[in-house]
Amino acid sequence: MNPYTAPLEDMRFALHELADLDRVAQLPDAEALAEPELMDAILDQAARFAKEVLAPIDHVGDRQGSRWTEGRVQTPPGFADAFRRFVDAGWSGIALPSAYGGQGLPTLLCTVVREIFTSANKAFCYCPELTEFAVKALSSGASESLKAVYLPKLVSGQWSATMNLTESQAGSDVGALRTRAEPRPDGSYRIFGQKIFISYGEHDLTDNIVHLVLARLPGAPEGTRGISLFLVPKILPDGRRNDVRCTGIEHKMGNHASPTCTLVYGGAGEGAQGWLVGTENKGLQTMFVMVNSARLTVGQEGTAMSERAYQQALAYARERVQGKPADGGNESVPIIRHPDVRRMLLMMRTQTEAMRAVAYLIASARDLAASHPDAEVRRERQTFVELMTPVFKGWATETAIEVTSMSIQIHGGLGYIEESGVSQPLRDVRVAAIYEGTTSIQAHDLVDRKLVRDGGAALRTWLSQVHASLNRLDETGVPELVAVGVRLRTATQALQSTCDAIFANYRQRPIEVLVGSVPLLRLFGLVLGGWQMARAALAAHRDREQGRGHAQFLDAKIASARFYAAHVLPQASALAEVSISGGEAALAMDEAAF
Amino acid sequence: MNPYTAPLEDMRFALHELADLDRVAQLPDAEALAEPELMDAILDQAARFAKEVLAPIDHVGDRQGSRWTEGRVQTPPGFADAFRRFVDAGWSGIALPSAYGGQGLPTLLCTVVREIFTSANKAFCYCPELTEFAVKALSSGASESLKAVYLPKLVSGQWSATMNLTESQAGSDVGALRTRAEPRPDGSYRIFGQKIFISYGEHDLTDNIVHLVLARLPGAPEGTRGISLFLVPKILPDGRRNDVRCTGIEHKMGNHASPTCTLVYGGAGEGAQGWLVGTENKGLQTMFVMVNSARLTVGQEGTAMSERAYQQALAYARERVQGKPADGGNESVPIIRHPDVRRMLLMMRTQTEAMRAVAYLIASARDLAASHPDAEVRRERQTFVELMTPVFKGWATETAIEVTSMSIQIHGGLGYIEESGVSQPLRDVRVAAIYEGTTSIQAHDLVDRKLVRDGGAALRTWLSQVHASLNRLDETGVPELVAVGVRLRTATQALQSTCDAIFANYRQRPIEVLVGSVPLLRLFGLVLGGWQMARAALAAHRDREQGRGHAQFLDAKIASARFYAAHVLPQASALAEVSISGGEAALAMDEAAF
Repeated sequence: MNPYTAPLEDMRFALHELADLDRVAQLPDAEALAEPELMDAILDQAARFAKEVLAPIDHVGDRQGSRWTEGRVQTPPGFADAFRRFVDAGWSGIALPSAYGGQGLPTLLCTVVREIFTSANKAFCYCPELTEFAVKALSSGASESLKAVYLPKLVSGQWSATMNLTESQAGSDVGALRTRAEPRPDGSYRIFGQKIFISYGEHDLTDNIVHLVLARLPGAPEGTRGISLFLVPKILPDGRRNDVRCTGIEHKMGNHASPTCTLVYGGAGEGAQGWLVGTENKGLQTMFVMVNSARLTVGQEGTAMSERAYQQALAYARERVQGKPADGGNESVPIIRHPDVRRMLLMMRTQTEAMRAVAYLIASARDLAASHPDAEVRRERQTFVELMTPVFKGWATETAIEVTSMSIQIHGGLGYIEESGVSQPLRDVRVAAIYEGTTSIQAHDLVDRKLVRDGGAALRTWLSQVHASLNRLDETGVPELVAVGVRLRTATQALQSTCDAIFANYRQRPIEVLVGSVPLLRLFGLVLGGWQMARAALAAHRDREQGRGHAQFLDAKIASARFYAAHVLPQASALAEVSISGGEAALAMDEAAF
Repeated sequence: MNPYTAPLEDMRFALHELADLDRVAQLPDAEALAEPELMDAILDQAARFAKEVLAPIDHVGDRQGSRWTEGRVQTPPGFADAFRRFVDAGWSGIALPSAYGGQGLPTLLCTVVREIFTSANKAFCYCPELTEFAVKALSSGASESLKAVYLPKLVSGQWSATMNLTESQAGSDVGALRTRAEPRPDGSYRIFGQKIFISYGEHDLTDNIVHLVLARLPGAPEGTRGISLFLVPKILPDGRRNDVRCTGIEHKMGNHASPTCTLVYGGAGEGAQGWLVGTENKGLQTMFVMVNSARLTVGQEGTAMSERAYQQALAYARERVQGKPADGGNESVPIIRHPDVRRMLLMMRTQTEAMRAVAYLIASARDLAASHPDAEVRRERQTFVELMTPVFKGWATETAIEVTSMSIQIHGGLGYIEESGVSQPLRDVRVAAIYEGTTSIQAHDLVDRKLVRDGGAALRTWLSQVHASLNRLDETGVPELVAVGVRLRTATQALQSTCDAIFANYRQRPIEVLVGSVPLLRLFGLVLGGWQMARAALAAHRDREQGRGHAQFLDAKIASARFYAAHVLPQASALAEVSISGGEAALAMDEAAF
């Protein structure tokens, strides 16, 4: 049920044509990209692992879920075996530092592999992903002695890790947290408090679980400036069970296989033993290394679930014979022939392609920002990553909710039946617009820190690239590509006007501007995606002109760009109008009158 | 958990100011509307019943659901008691003919009552609603002897009824059904076949269940012209159990309390005994009396679930304190103060108000079409109902999916937890865009039968009413109302241009036009809703000028109209552009390349 086949042709196209692969391949430690056979082998193996191991247990993961009994959590049938095979095959360490046994593959390649695994089984992937985030945080912040004890076993996949931020009164406002840490004479700490919504906070996949916990030291400043980060293992180095207990797991709309735990630290009285990571009261900085990386990962959940839903909907639309052709004829046809089903499939497909292309471009920018020999390139790419992180996270997850819902629509009544597995991508991805910062928070970050703070400099740099692509579309002289350019230019102008209005008004009227911040973010994402679609069409056109490549695939890339331009980009003007001029009307209603 | 309070003030406003109440009240048999105290009493009682009886069991209905064991279905705790109280209070017969013991209240009033009950407990309402549809079909089509046996007990609520259309190969294409009926010597029939997705096909709320079943007679023409309608009771008049069995119920995304049954007729071999309703091979005509009425009811599920979700989200946004004000200050505030939360609440609220106002106007048109003494009024109102049925059904249900999803977003992580009840409105309403004709089918109906067939006559009649409202907005000279008028005029022109393109192109290029049919439907709904919002603002402004009414409420109506105009209506141009010019790009991709 619900097979999944990695869209390797589109992935390779996006890597080679859109994501600066050649530049990334020249970086130090990027051998995997420099050797095409090696990269292809990794992708082929990932695709095979996803199809043969992860996708087949996705549905039982949804239907049965993880189960809690007296502090223990049992993952669904097949998950423990799949995790062991995942670790044995070396997938757990691909993104992790080679100094601790990882493979240190470039982010670009890891982004593709992660998309494949997430499409196949999103709930499974949380466990290795959280471990990866924790390893990165520990690598950057922990003492050498902590690293020596914990990193090798986390990198190898023998142990897993968690991120503990949320408390019931401290969700989006992490500064409101109350978990406390008291120093012990031996230099470690006693941790007391309750954390909620901790993914894989307890499970049966690994021998030990390493919790990274935000807490307050005695006398720490209030708010975000008084938060420290602690490492709290489930099993202590001497083999004793630490005082951290899972008191329950949530029943959620989706991601049923991933246990979402309430963890109580120090419930037995003496406190859970933990160790400080990094500097006192600077825990958020270390954690935010993880959070920013996590935001891009969550954005990619949007791509991955959209792809999965598209594959399901397409298979059904080809197979389901129902109704007569709209332009006449008495034979019933597969529903893909019905115009509105075709439209929905193309809405799903083209937006998924756009998300993917954007994700890979950001991933390559992360690699270049980290390792390019030229400091100016590093700076420029880092600025691009920072600008695009909230855009991609917000746009891809919100769009994925719409795309996955379209799959239900295409399936008709069957889509509403749980055994069909059709609603799972929507239910699984719905939370992606919430965790790691809601779309509201992404939009606020975009306006305040990514646009206004540098006076639009990062925006202008990127827009000059978009305009270069627009000129190239015109230069082709091909009517279909010129038409794509016309719509992309209009949408880009709408984005520029909206940003200009923000620069003019934000200081004086922040509330009115922020009312329009999510429409702005959606508009930004549309244009960003449209730019990548246009670049894809240009590359496909060039290959077609030169007689290279797979003709059907390249023609489809051009058709995708045309559809995206004609059906998605027209929203830009509406979003600009709402963002620019909707503030006053939104403030007109008295709060008491709601 | 999940309290619900009927929004009586907005309902009464819509009834009195927007829905032709005064005209409907003058119709024969409309005493309940003519006497304000009586109408108010009915609405108050409905609101109380919803709050005290139906809403409290909505959550357990979702969490526990109906359960199937060996052919029997057990409804969730409290449902049988609530159904008995529902029947005892006389709610089951309000819309049904007085000749058979019903109260025969006007459709307008019943539409309000049904909205209240659906908001409180959508899954519960299916049972009385399906019975009501069946009573109407039997009233119009059944023989007097069948009526005498079945109608009194269906009207009283002692028995319930079902609609049996769908088979696994016959969903949207009902003409593909295979259930067959063989004549018996006594004039009855033996029914053989399997029906799926039958709501309340088996349950423990009533002594008997009367199934209305579409089937084919021997030698009947193929397709929709060879389908007859049969009445097949679970318990035969002589007290024997008929051969209709529930072989299972579906596990669904939502509506868990409503058992969605697979029914097997004649599984024991001799056939289930049934009686023909109406004329041989004309079963679809009788059933479509129910289907058109059902489409409006389903559209109202959109309103009802949007209202429920809005109330939940608003209560949470007022109560949840999280984060600092965007314009400065160190005190954490309720999240309703955050600009994007305010925007989302207003998107939810104003679109819900728009749906409600449209629903009531269509309901009053149904009353006028049925009973007005002037044949020209009857004809004009009937044409309006037919034009607006697919628009309202498609627009309200699609919009409700977005509105209910926003409630999850406002609730943040809590919205993803099933115990919170927050996702239930989305999960419950998701199917409303599918059953009784998917949005694709509504859009096809709109283009083909409601716009093109009469050459746009019905559209022009309605648009002249919209233009009258636009002129009234201008005449006020009030800048806020004039601004609403500017946006509504732009949107109306977008709708007119789109329809003109359809009239020009449909015969020659039906596929390209139909690719744009759902965007057209959404655009049509936006304008229809915007027109009602504008009329509401005009009425509120008049009352304010005259110093009448509840000032806070009236000001909020004006603020709602302003928000809708500034945040919802701008989508019109984008939808028009997609609908008019998106066809070619949607057909560019080779079907094999998908």
